[in-house]
Amino acid sequence: MNRDELLARLKPEMVKIDETMAEDLADIVDPTLREIIHHGIFNGGKRVRPLLTLLAANLCGGEINRDAYRLSMSFEYLHAASLLHDDVIDHAEQRRGKPSANTIWGNSDVILAGDYLHTRAMTLAGTVGSPEILSVIGKATTSMVEAEFLQAKTAQEIDRSVDNYFSVLAGKTGALISSPCETGALFAKASDNQRQALYNYGMALGLAFQVVDDLLDYQGDPAKTGKAVGNDFQEGKMTLPLLHALDQADDAQRDQLLDLLAASPEKRQSEVATAHDIIEANKGFAHARAKAETLVTEACEALSCFPDNDAKNMLLGLGQYVLTRQK
Amino acid sequence: MNRDELLARLKPEMVKIDETMAEDLADIVDPTLREIIHHGIFNGGKRVRPLLTLLAANLCGGEINRDAYRLSMSFEYLHAASLLHDDVIDHAEQRRGKPSANTIWGNSDVILAGDYLHTRAMTLAGTVGSPEILSVIGKATTSMVEAEFLQAKTAQEIDRSVDNYFSVLAGKTGALISSPCETGALFAKASDNQRQALYNYGMALGLAFQVVDDLLDYQGDPAKTGKAVGNDFQEGKMTLPLLHALDQADDAQRDQLLDLLAASPEKRQSEVATAHDIIEANKGFAHARAKAETLVTEACEALSCFPDNDAKNMLLGLGQYVLTRQK
Repeated sequence: MNRDELLARLKPEMVKIDETMAEDLADIVDPTLREIIHHGIFNGGKRVRPLLTLLAANLCGGEINRDAYRLSMSFEYLHAASLLHDDVIDHAEQRRGKPSANTIWGNSDVILAGDYLHTRAMTLAGTVGSPEILSVIGKATTSMVEAEFLQAKTAQEIDRSVDNYFSVLAGKTGALISSPCETGALFAKASDNQRQALYNYGMALGLAFQVVDDLLDYQGDPAKTGKAVGNDFQEGKMTLPLLHALDQADDAQRDQLLDLLAASPEKRQSEVATAHDIIEANKGFAHARAKAETLVTEACEALSCFPDNDAKNMLLGLGQYVLTRQK
Repeated sequence: MNRDELLARLKPEMVKIDETMAEDLADIVDPTLREIIHHGIFNGGKRVRPLLTLLAANLCGGEINRDAYRLSMSFEYLHAASLLHDDVIDHAEQRRGKPSANTIWGNSDVILAGDYLHTRAMTLAGTVGSPEILSVIGKATTSMVEAEFLQAKTAQEIDRSVDNYFSVLAGKTGALISSPCETGALFAKASDNQRQALYNYGMALGLAFQVVDDLLDYQGDPAKTGKAVGNDFQEGKMTLPLLHALDQADDAQRDQLLDLLAASPEKRQSEVATAHDIIEANKGFAHARAKAETLVTEACEALSCFPDNDAKNMLLGLGQYVLTRQK
């Protein structure tokens, strides 16, 4: 299924997810709280996580009823809650090309709004879902927080290992992609094997998504990504292309990279093109791209235990979508 | 049961709650995350909320087993999570006479640690407890956030109503005291009547607790409360003693208060004694004290459907404790 066909097929589901969320959130009393949450939820976003829950449930033979939609929302709420708190933490001024919630309403109200959405996410998971589903979403959040702490300590270490890089990715991105997949399986009362298969699909897909993100940071078109090129390098973030280049480079090039990593962020910003060339020469981008492709292949292979059908085709299509995305 | 006897009886339970929490939190991987959470949980606090769950469960004939202790922890986690976020929001430098977590570790890590504890609280509520208990804790948190927004908008309004004052109290303090009581009843599979009685007990107790807090703000001994006298007046917060005085004062005194409320915080700080005298002359403190006593009487009467026993005596004792506390 190609990209356009996939998006056309998913569009009606995205609309239905949005309608279900708007209906669910209509009971917020305070007008400011309602505005912040609507800004967080309805300011773009492709509803990837709820879609994964619905597709996984469908793949496992579950009925896609009102409860399925309501349960799927919990991952969009959790995602939006984490973005609200992330933007406070990062002092981000923009989100999806528009002023961030913290820029408009200030940190205090946005922290509280994040807590509110987080609460609704978990309540949905444990009531429309089940205690087991609640454990899955709970584990995703605790993994995410652990990964944030691990990242803060290690992402800028010159001798950061590739294992460490992937550990952070698994917690920060993988857990929030694998858990909606796993939840779809649990909702459909799938077998343990099917649940595990969908977890594996989601984790590999999430890792691939983030590796592509790290590639786009160097190679993306700022007009599409909305971010400056080389942001990670400027911040001294040791992502896969750079780690591979450091491992492969000759002494002169490695020293050149290490000197830049020891320099000021301003110096690094002015030398992004130098870093780009050394990474390119040492196949850092090609290696990361190949890794993302391998991960998507693994994700797709994890679904081999399921019969071919529409839901499976769309999940496989999402794998290709991750590889071809430009923002 | 007098205060000393009550504390002596509750002490072993407090120790057991602490042990259960320490054991539960031993699986935190990141050392900084672990430190922040230990600071948030084990830096004082009387475990009032978990004790209420255990006493309520006991009163309803529930077995006080390991699950009861584990479930009761969720309210301490939720309370600690909300204090961590509150201190970030208020830029608080101290908590219980020691440096606040945000002072030591900074806002970012503390926001994340609050999210982590919040997640654990809700997961416990819905797994060790039940979907119904999860709904109770979820509703407590959403009420708390709604009340924070309502408070931000109305707490400093000159014409704030007493109803508005109690609405904010119900969400901010009442919900986090009534929900552990209700949870104890649900854990013990109590009747709807018993559950409602314990909810009513907790809500009235929580309101009384906060009215006393607002009295201590004017009348407390700073050496015991750890807070300067007249803080609320300086911030222009319209609490019950002041609302009553404004309602009762003659024109001259009312104008004097209104002039101060329209003045700068510095001016108000220098005139706290004036405000205190006008409130005293118009029986604002006596009125608030009488209201707290009425609320505690209501709390105790709510328990009249239960037979007399140890758990009930301790819950009644907590009512008196709220009225006599000095910090």
